[in-house]
Amino acid sequence: MASINILKFGVSSPSDTSPLEGLKAAGYKSDNILAVIGKSEGNGCVNDFSRTLSSHVWGSQIPESAVTVFSGGTEGVLSPHITFVVRDRSSTGLRAAVGRTRILQPHEIGTSAQALEVCSSIRSMLNESGILREQVRLILIKCPLLTSEKVEMIKATGRTPVTTDTYDSMAKSRYSSALGIGIALDEVEECHLDEALRSQSAWSTKASCSSGAELEDCHILIIASDSFTGNLRAISGHMDDAIDARAITRLLEQVNREGGQVLQVFAKAEADPTGSIRGKRHTMNTDSDIHSTRHARAAVGGLLAGLTGETQLYISGGAEGQGPPGGGPICVAYRAGA
Amino acid sequence: MASINILKFGVSSPSDTSPLEGLKAAGYKSDNILAVIGKSEGNGCVNDFSRTLSSHVWGSQIPESAVTVFSGGTEGVLSPHITFVVRDRSSTGLRAAVGRTRILQPHEIGTSAQALEVCSSIRSMLNESGILREQVRLILIKCPLLTSEKVEMIKATGRTPVTTDTYDSMAKSRYSSALGIGIALDEVEECHLDEALRSQSAWSTKASCSSGAELEDCHILIIASDSFTGNLRAISGHMDDAIDARAITRLLEQVNREGGQVLQVFAKAEADPTGSIRGKRHTMNTDSDIHSTRHARAAVGGLLAGLTGETQLYISGGAEGQGPPGGGPICVAYRAGA
Amino acid sequence: MASINILKFGVSSPSDTSPLEGLKAAGYKSDNILAVIGKSEGNGCVNDFSRTLSSHVWGSQIPESAVTVFSGGTEGVLSPHITFVVRDRSSTGLRAAVGRTRILQPHEIGTSAQALEVCSSIRSMLNESGILREQVRLILIKCPLLTSEKVEMIKATGRTPVTTDTYDSMAKSRYSSALGIGIALDEVEECHLDEALRSQSAWSTKASCSSGAELEDCHILIIASDSFTGNLRAISGHMDDAIDARAITRLLEQVNREGGQVLQVFAKAEADPTGSIRGKRHTMNTDSDIHSTRHARAAVGGLLAGLTGETQLYISGGAEGQGPPGGGPICVAYRAGA
Amino acid sequence: MASINILKFGVSSPSDTSPLEGLKAAGYKSDNILAVIGKSEGNGCVNDFSRTLSSHVWGSQIPESAVTVFSGGTEGVLSPHITFVVRDRSSTGLRAAVGRTRILQPHEIGTSAQALEVCSSIRSMLNESGILREQVRLILIKCPLLTSEKVEMIKATGRTPVTTDTYDSMAKSRYSSALGIGIALDEVEECHLDEALRSQSAWSTKASCSSGAELEDCHILIIASDSFTGNLRAISGHMDDAIDARAITRLLEQVNREGGQVLQVFAKAEADPTGSIRGKRHTMNTDSDIHSTRHARAAVGGLLAGLTGETQLYISGGAEGQGPPGGGPICVAYRAGA
Repeated sequence: MASINILKFGVSSPSDTSPLEGLKAAGYKSDNILAVIGKSEGNGCVNDFSRTLSSHVWGSQIPESAVTVFSGGTEGVLSPHITFVVRDRSSTGLRAAVGRTRILQPHEIGTSAQALEVCSSIRSMLNESGILREQVRLILIKCPLLTSEKVEMIKATGRTPVTTDTYDSMAKSRYSSALGIGIALDEVEECHLDEALRSQSAWSTKASCSSGAELEDCHILIIASDSFTGNLRAISGHMDDAIDARAITRLLEQVNREGGQVLQVFAKAEADPTGSIRGKRHTMNTDSDIHSTRHARAAVGGLLAGLTGETQLYISGGAEGQGPPGGGPICVAYRAGA
Repeated sequence: MASINILKFGVSSPSDTSPLEGLKAAGYKSDNILAVIGKSEGNGCVNDFSRTLSSHVWGSQIPESAVTVFSGGTEGVLSPHITFVVRDRSSTGLRAAVGRTRILQPHEIGTSAQALEVCSSIRSMLNESGILREQVRLILIKCPLLTSEKVEMIKATGRTPVTTDTYDSMAKSRYSSALGIGIALDEVEECHLDEALRSQSAWSTKASCSSGAELEDCHILIIASDSFTGNLRAISGHMDDAIDARAITRLLEQVNREGGQVLQVFAKAEADPTGSIRGKRHTMNTDSDIHSTRHARAAVGGLLAGLTGETQLYISGGAEGQGPPGGGPICVAYRAGA
Repeated sequence: MASINILKFGVSSPSDTSPLEGLKAAGYKSDNILAVIGKSEGNGCVNDFSRTLSSHVWGSQIPESAVTVFSGGTEGVLSPHITFVVRDRSSTGLRAAVGRTRILQPHEIGTSAQALEVCSSIRSMLNESGILREQVRLILIKCPLLTSEKVEMIKATGRTPVTTDTYDSMAKSRYSSALGIGIALDEVEECHLDEALRSQSAWSTKASCSSGAELEDCHILIIASDSFTGNLRAISGHMDDAIDARAITRLLEQVNREGGQVLQVFAKAEADPTGSIRGKRHTMNTDSDIHSTRHARAAVGGLLAGLTGETQLYISGGAEGQGPPGGGPICVAYRAGA
Repeated sequence: MASINILKFGVSSPSDTSPLEGLKAAGYKSDNILAVIGKSEGNGCVNDFSRTLSSHVWGSQIPESAVTVFSGGTEGVLSPHITFVVRDRSSTGLRAAVGRTRILQPHEIGTSAQALEVCSSIRSMLNESGILREQVRLILIKCPLLTSEKVEMIKATGRTPVTTDTYDSMAKSRYSSALGIGIALDEVEECHLDEALRSQSAWSTKASCSSGAELEDCHILIIASDSFTGNLRAISGHMDDAIDARAITRLLEQVNREGGQVLQVFAKAEADPTGSIRGKRHTMNTDSDIHSTRHARAAVGGLLAGLTGETQLYISGGAEGQGPPGGGPICVAYRAGA
């Protein structure tokens, strides 16, 4: 377990590591970094190399144990930036734990094997860190996807890949990770895992999963709030649909009541899979020029930016199993007033 | 001058004219239609044929004098729909006038000639309708663009086109139209027109211009609110930037104070041309996969939908000269409470 | 059965019907039209309304029995155009038959029901027209796809749609149609239909299928060459992969040997589903910004245009079951020399 | 001057440096590398970070003096790969020289200053290497572009940027570099430089320029063929338009006459700026979903791949000043038969 602080800095490109200077100016060393959570300006889909580039340049700058979650896609008003989760000597009120699953075999990606592996890793992390389940506000996971090569590898061993569509594999991997979180946090029953994989309808309110071509295992970051030490806090909720402003203002009102200042917002967004929002047709799933994840990030990003007045927000696409279908979880980390 | 009502209906595709049935159910005939204002699901750029398709199917259903403004692009949560402006026998409080400029020669598109033609048409329309300048809440204009063929036609006559880039010509045409509105409404000084064309920095707060390949003249719709007859009203304001939620809530609070119900919101959106919003970099202008207009509609659409709870909103991209750079005008038409 | 001629004309937009004038200048009336086969400039995917627009403007100009096949996508050097198949009083050497299946229920799209329906319609058409199976050079089919609405309709009846992804449904529908052609032409065994649907590996060398949102039944056009009357001919072959220039030059050499002049080339293209061509990786299936069908049309279009010296070519994307995987059928219609 | 060999290897991603192993297996060391010329799988436009990623991973693996030219975009059948130009102890028949201009100030990008700087660097390189002007077969240049930041920097100094559109700046920079090559090779007259910049109509047949966000100076690689030592050769020509198959087969026939084997083809492609090819309209310049450079690479790549039977070809988009408008230069490096 570690008491933490959360800081964010803009970047001029996916290869910009200048935020390290800001971090140092704030009194932290790169050794203190538990996690680097970035929004980079790629398409956030299969051929997004901005993410890989960010992973590459940051790899040598941070402790080996640190988790990196680079999520592509700063559509609309969103601004490319880096969020640091850093160890803090004082008791800030926020705590974090980081960990990884074992390397997943290609044929395990998007299956119950991945969900169980994620769940078991989270349980160990909670045990070791002493974080209680009810203190958890957000679990960020970066998980692998199926590249064309991996699909062929699976076929070569006589197995059937969970999907042969690389883009679709990103969704399946996110969903498996989210189910793992849901089981670990008692939001989803382990005995219903297979059914949940079939129905695609189970969800966690604390999960934020993204998938990338640059890793083979799942990287896990747990953020918790103890609410009785320090003045840093995190609260979480979920949007029922992509225009659920009320879910956001409820959280921001709580921050305001405590005279607080937002450190960062972590949210997930997705195009409602039914093809409509509050009974009105949307076109995110039928636009063959722009993937639905890009549409969803742009729209939810516009809403969150308007309500918070900030554009350096962590909004990640693909919310399968993360909040209700068409909606998504939100976590607001903030510094409470004196 | 005509007293009007405003009604909106969802469409299942750009060729769906079923809203006519809704109109009839509401007690109006297609003869009453002054304007059909549609959001269709294309890319809203040069090769958007959803717009042309809508124009085509609606052309035979409405009076010849009616103005049609089909704006492509329902990015993010936005929902394809049609807004009717219909003549109403009673004094509703809302009034409208429709008109057209003469056909513009290709070499006039995007120049002062277009601005002056628009201005002069608006002045005539105000005179004829008896609408006062201060009652005007919104002037919607659909204007032509330069296709590759038109660019070649201009060159063939030895003239220099205002741009050879068809996409850029859409912006130039919108800006010229907006200047025409600005001059007509005394927001821009006519003597500064040439300078305004050079600087690209003048603007009107009542202008909503879009450009399309399907027309040769400018179609003009003026919406005014007299505030002393009936219970229909329109108020207008402008967003200072793409995340200016305050500008929106101010208008919605006014509607709420009058116990009102929103009939429709008309807004323009654009990517801040400086490349940043409130000092933070955005990536809408450097994304070579998605045009900045699509980003901007998605983001502002997300914000407006969240705040109003509705997704059938008229949000059009390309706000050159329409509100401050990076921001845009908003007009809310509503029915005041009893 | 009808003796036919084939003529092609450029169009300035998807709504351009000026080719009718060219047709008249060539001595034909619109009553003679058996089929209008167009390449329009949309994305050729789900939200391509250029196709719908073309269908719309042509609908009122041609006999009700005429088949229209508008295929979206003129990527790369390809040029938007219309190909007419017209009834000719003299015996030209080319013959055609047109027909339609019954309307397919949403749940039948992409299934064996569609394949069998297509097959049975073709058999009837061959019988009625007296065209022999071995004279068939090309069977063009336009078939329906699953829109979001249709997917919901299927679910509402308690059935499982063949796919919930509208884009994927286009592929499934094309494949079913191609299997129907294959069975009718004895290229695929009817008893292996279910297996073929599972394996996605059966194919016809005479099939050219495209899918669109604008129809509910399958439109079928059979083109045959009798080789002993007149001087119009058609020959067909297939590309083994997307760079199989030899398959093309073989056909063009035959045309040259007969002192012939190409009337039109009909080809299908697709991204090799294995992710590589002749052992080298391609990126068409992992590009999240451009659909693989657009890549494939652009590449094969570039090759065919270079070899024929023409850009008004009918190259349609999505060759599932049409030629070998990654390749596709080609049919060259030509006028033999004196 | 250096005698060189040319080798190419496929890559599994933009960060794959495994070709170094292939290079070693062929008997070369990384110290021998004069240039790394890559085709990576990004969009080849402004926000293409695959290029930056490749530059990043290769930077530490090669001599500091080596030139890297990573060109984004493997549209259609093209396959991501790396071409090495390596110093060879024996006299192979092929020679190369590498160099760089000084760093260009943002306001110089796309202007005569860039052209003159490129020209002067090439002249020095020819002098120093002893390569004769008539032996030059290809000059590859990678040059900087204007990012949003650079545009603001220029404005801040009171200067007017050559363009404020970052994508357009790529074209302007390529054109300036090509003019520099043209002047150095006596294809363009220096006294006509200003006129050439205005008219955009001058061109070199040996130029291959691409622009990227990752550099501030121009990197220059000259490839020459002496035709009397060794058995490696290079020949060059140019396509008159994007479907000029004859220009390609002429070069390949020469290779065949010498019993040769192609080592690599270097070509440039662009959408004809007039909007038509051989009098027929193309839609590459009016497609708002796909940039014209992507269309052009896909189409010309399809043609070259078909004619050579290979997909690991260096085809770069944006041929401003490189070959005639709508066409582009081609250089074929090959090993002559015994």
